[in-house]
Amino acid sequence: MKILKRKAFEELYAPMEEELVAMARWVAKTGARVVVLMEGRDTAGKGGAIDAIRGPLNPRQCRVVALPKPTEREKSQWYFQRYIEHLPAAGEIALFDRSWYNRAGVEKVMGYATEDQVTAFLTQVPRFEDLLVADGILLFKYWLATDQDQQEKRFAERLEDPLKRWKLSPIDLAARTKYDGYTKAREAMLRATHTDTAPWTLVDFNDQRRGRLTLIRNFLDRLPDTFVAPEDLVLEPLGHDPLDEVYGVLQPLAPFKPD
Amino acid sequence: MKILKRKAFEELYAPMEEELVAMARWVAKTGARVVVLMEGRDTAGKGGAIDAIRGPLNPRQCRVVALPKPTEREKSQWYFQRYIEHLPAAGEIALFDRSWYNRAGVEKVMGYATEDQVTAFLTQVPRFEDLLVADGILLFKYWLATDQDQQEKRFAERLEDPLKRWKLSPIDLAARTKYDGYTKAREAMLRATHTDTAPWTLVDFNDQRRGRLTLIRNFLDRLPDTFVAPEDLVLEPLGHDPLDEVYGVLQPLAPFKPD
Amino acid sequence: MKILKRKAFEELYAPMEEELVAMARWVAKTGARVVVLMEGRDTAGKGGAIDAIRGPLNPRQCRVVALPKPTEREKSQWYFQRYIEHLPAAGEIALFDRSWYNRAGVEKVMGYATEDQVTAFLTQVPRFEDLLVADGILLFKYWLATDQDQQEKRFAERLEDPLKRWKLSPIDLAARTKYDGYTKAREAMLRATHTDTAPWTLVDFNDQRRGRLTLIRNFLDRLPDTFVAPEDLVLEPLGHDPLDEVYGVLQPLAPFKPD
Amino acid sequence: MKILKRKAFEELYAPMEEELVAMARWVAKTGARVVVLMEGRDTAGKGGAIDAIRGPLNPRQCRVVALPKPTEREKSQWYFQRYIEHLPAAGEIALFDRSWYNRAGVEKVMGYATEDQVTAFLTQVPRFEDLLVADGILLFKYWLATDQDQQEKRFAERLEDPLKRWKLSPIDLAARTKYDGYTKAREAMLRATHTDTAPWTLVDFNDQRRGRLTLIRNFLDRLPDTFVAPEDLVLEPLGHDPLDEVYGVLQPLAPFKPD
Repeated sequence: MKILKRKAFEELYAPMEEELVAMARWVAKTGARVVVLMEGRDTAGKGGAIDAIRGPLNPRQCRVVALPKPTEREKSQWYFQRYIEHLPAAGEIALFDRSWYNRAGVEKVMGYATEDQVTAFLTQVPRFEDLLVADGILLFKYWLATDQDQQEKRFAERLEDPLKRWKLSPIDLAARTKYDGYTKAREAMLRATHTDTAPWTLVDFNDQRRGRLTLIRNFLDRLPDTFVAPEDLVLEPLGHDPLDEVYGVLQPLAPFKPD
Repeated sequence: MKILKRKAFEELYAPMEEELVAMARWVAKTGARVVVLMEGRDTAGKGGAIDAIRGPLNPRQCRVVALPKPTEREKSQWYFQRYIEHLPAAGEIALFDRSWYNRAGVEKVMGYATEDQVTAFLTQVPRFEDLLVADGILLFKYWLATDQDQQEKRFAERLEDPLKRWKLSPIDLAARTKYDGYTKAREAMLRATHTDTAPWTLVDFNDQRRGRLTLIRNFLDRLPDTFVAPEDLVLEPLGHDPLDEVYGVLQPLAPFKPD
Repeated sequence: MKILKRKAFEELYAPMEEELVAMARWVAKTGARVVVLMEGRDTAGKGGAIDAIRGPLNPRQCRVVALPKPTEREKSQWYFQRYIEHLPAAGEIALFDRSWYNRAGVEKVMGYATEDQVTAFLTQVPRFEDLLVADGILLFKYWLATDQDQQEKRFAERLEDPLKRWKLSPIDLAARTKYDGYTKAREAMLRATHTDTAPWTLVDFNDQRRGRLTLIRNFLDRLPDTFVAPEDLVLEPLGHDPLDEVYGVLQPLAPFKPD
Repeated sequence: MKILKRKAFEELYAPMEEELVAMARWVAKTGARVVVLMEGRDTAGKGGAIDAIRGPLNPRQCRVVALPKPTEREKSQWYFQRYIEHLPAAGEIALFDRSWYNRAGVEKVMGYATEDQVTAFLTQVPRFEDLLVADGILLFKYWLATDQDQQEKRFAERLEDPLKRWKLSPIDLAARTKYDGYTKAREAMLRATHTDTAPWTLVDFNDQRRGRLTLIRNFLDRLPDTFVAPEDLVLEPLGHDPLDEVYGVLQPLAPFKPD
């Protein structure tokens, strides 16, 4: 299959945007609570996939949860505690850019968590997620896959491209040589946490554009397809000529002009 | 001045993205704390301006703060309390999609706040902001302006375009006929809160693309132009052929294919 | 058995205070996390039992968690979410004055929760508590019992005694005639949630002073009896006469004087 | 003036308890928000004064705020931020066991804050407190004074008495020799922060029991003396003999028995 060109992507993505917006209306109307976990290889394209979901949505309804490193105090609390704080209320969608699965991924592979901690985590997480699902939360767990040649290409790109440079950290470099370790860690994670109530979905992101479409299509197909009509609104005639801005206290900036 | 075409915009925006990334590196390095308030007319383009700033940045560093309606409990607390919770820690950038200025805008014009509350707010806010600035927070306050003919065009577009329909609420319609009331409210707000320590910046968003460039250019120009070199990283040769994904427990989704 | 007189109580309680202090030192030293849930009949004496534990302890280490009614937003979140926020960090003790068990008690008996919600809760709570215990949290669940004649006496007292009047609400009065309903609800709760990992302890509080001693004795006996010596500190001589307060800006209040 | 005996204290305190309860009813009824800051010398008796206020009150209405050390993240935020989170909602009373004034006291004297930070703090705090008061919060600031001979006696007692041992830390010992430094710091603090809108009240706690009475009397006298009648409640006859506890699943603990 060929790499999807930008234009082809945009044509295929446009109708999905509309579906995302309709989905969000359904979520608001029914008070559903949606949690999407975005996990995967470094460079796989988690951020881009999140942006493709949240792009057309109301930021007051759809939040990105990208937590900073835990404080010492948080580290001593129940492992899930700081994530739980960000679970959605009725009508909300929370997109987790990495999640509690850090412990089974980077923390395990890089040795930041002990074997015992990882084992305990893998035992506990299905029970934790069962609770969320039993409470009615709609939980989606995506893992974004990419072969190492693609990953290498993207690392090189991040090194070169000043725009992407911040995506590359010394930890990423250290993690880079552990591609196989990550594969093994993922398989252990899947064995322990791919459950009936909270299944994983793997998505091939060797082609990131196609990956996004695959993921969003899956996401939309798994939500009920109940159409909620938008509120019926009418724009009455203003009854006067449209007004212009009038500035008293302060003038606007001179507009940016390329010269 | 002509409306900026998409392509022209992208060419002008690209170097700004690089500057934004460099700015974020400086923020991280120095532990600066940046707060950007995005206020303005309905339809002016607050969301788009925010996206243009946060787009190239690390979501773990740059957060969008778009608060839901206050709970009854929050309404009874100190007015600023629920906003303060989201102020940045060292090295962070917080972009407020609407802010405490709700009280001087929509709440005043629509009568959700009493005259006394608005007057009290206008008295208190400069003192509140002085405190933040005195503590070293870098505070930027942007108000996005647009003439009513543009606003009308965009309202009509929101009504038609299923993608933008969620941006139109009954409150917006009610507010629509109060264009002049908003102008007056803005001027009162400027008189009271355009201070030396925390000045407002008005930006003309009749042309939204140009507005974004104008705003970001201003934002970047007001931050110190200190270059922080990205960390020096080297991609050592892997020493083996790149590996491929190997799936055991679970296969990835079939890739999305247009039919 | 006779009712314990105040003086007898105080003599028996004094050595327990020392043990509580020693326990708290152990908690601080080892980074243990202790959660005590205090549940039971209205008027049983939850507040007094909590005060008897926290009395001799450092308020920075030992917190009382007595949550107000949930906001509408909180009601729509995961049921356990607002409690989880108050779980202890390393070295802390959290005393819950009522807890998530509200749902199986007052909410069930008074019909504030549906049968389905109660059933779901009773299914979920052992799994939730297992997670906390598996994470190493030391969880104690006490239910304070009292016969109805005692309860009636105390209700009458609360009605009469201006100091205790706030403890009596219209809900309490409505709940008062449902003594038997509470018994049944408690038994259902025990059947579902008295587990090996998180067992309940019932304490007879017909005699509140004796009840407190029984409860604290049990609490202390179930914690490891590892002695941690207090830090070795020496008060060196001051080397000068002790100084007196000297007031410049402001004089202290005239001391309260009975006449 | 002679030291107040326990019995005399209790007789004088009892009617104040009733007044505190009436005050709390007024707070609940009117939705007032009360903040009490308790500051003062080490050993002065802050904890005891707080207990004397909160003792008779509903813990769901009256909270003690005794914050642990700030995390690194909190240290980098706006200095007041972590305190603001605990300000009261309508109808609530927050008792701060130490407060933002740490910076002007222990942090200054022990050199944990720089001179610049202390100066900045002293400039900012009146403006911060003005905002709270302007918002309608009822703010009380008490500073508890004690001569050094009393302080020495109490330090010695803390060293000896296992119950009080936790109140003595190495920092306290280091601070002990800086009695005069604390006096100077307090005077500087008073000069800067004893304002019309948020005045300080000094209370002599050389006699701790009398100090508590003095403080509570002052506190009550400064609140409006508006009587709010307790809700009118009637205990209807039960209509049957009172029931006894019946245990099925689990028996209560054997009662504690001194032998």
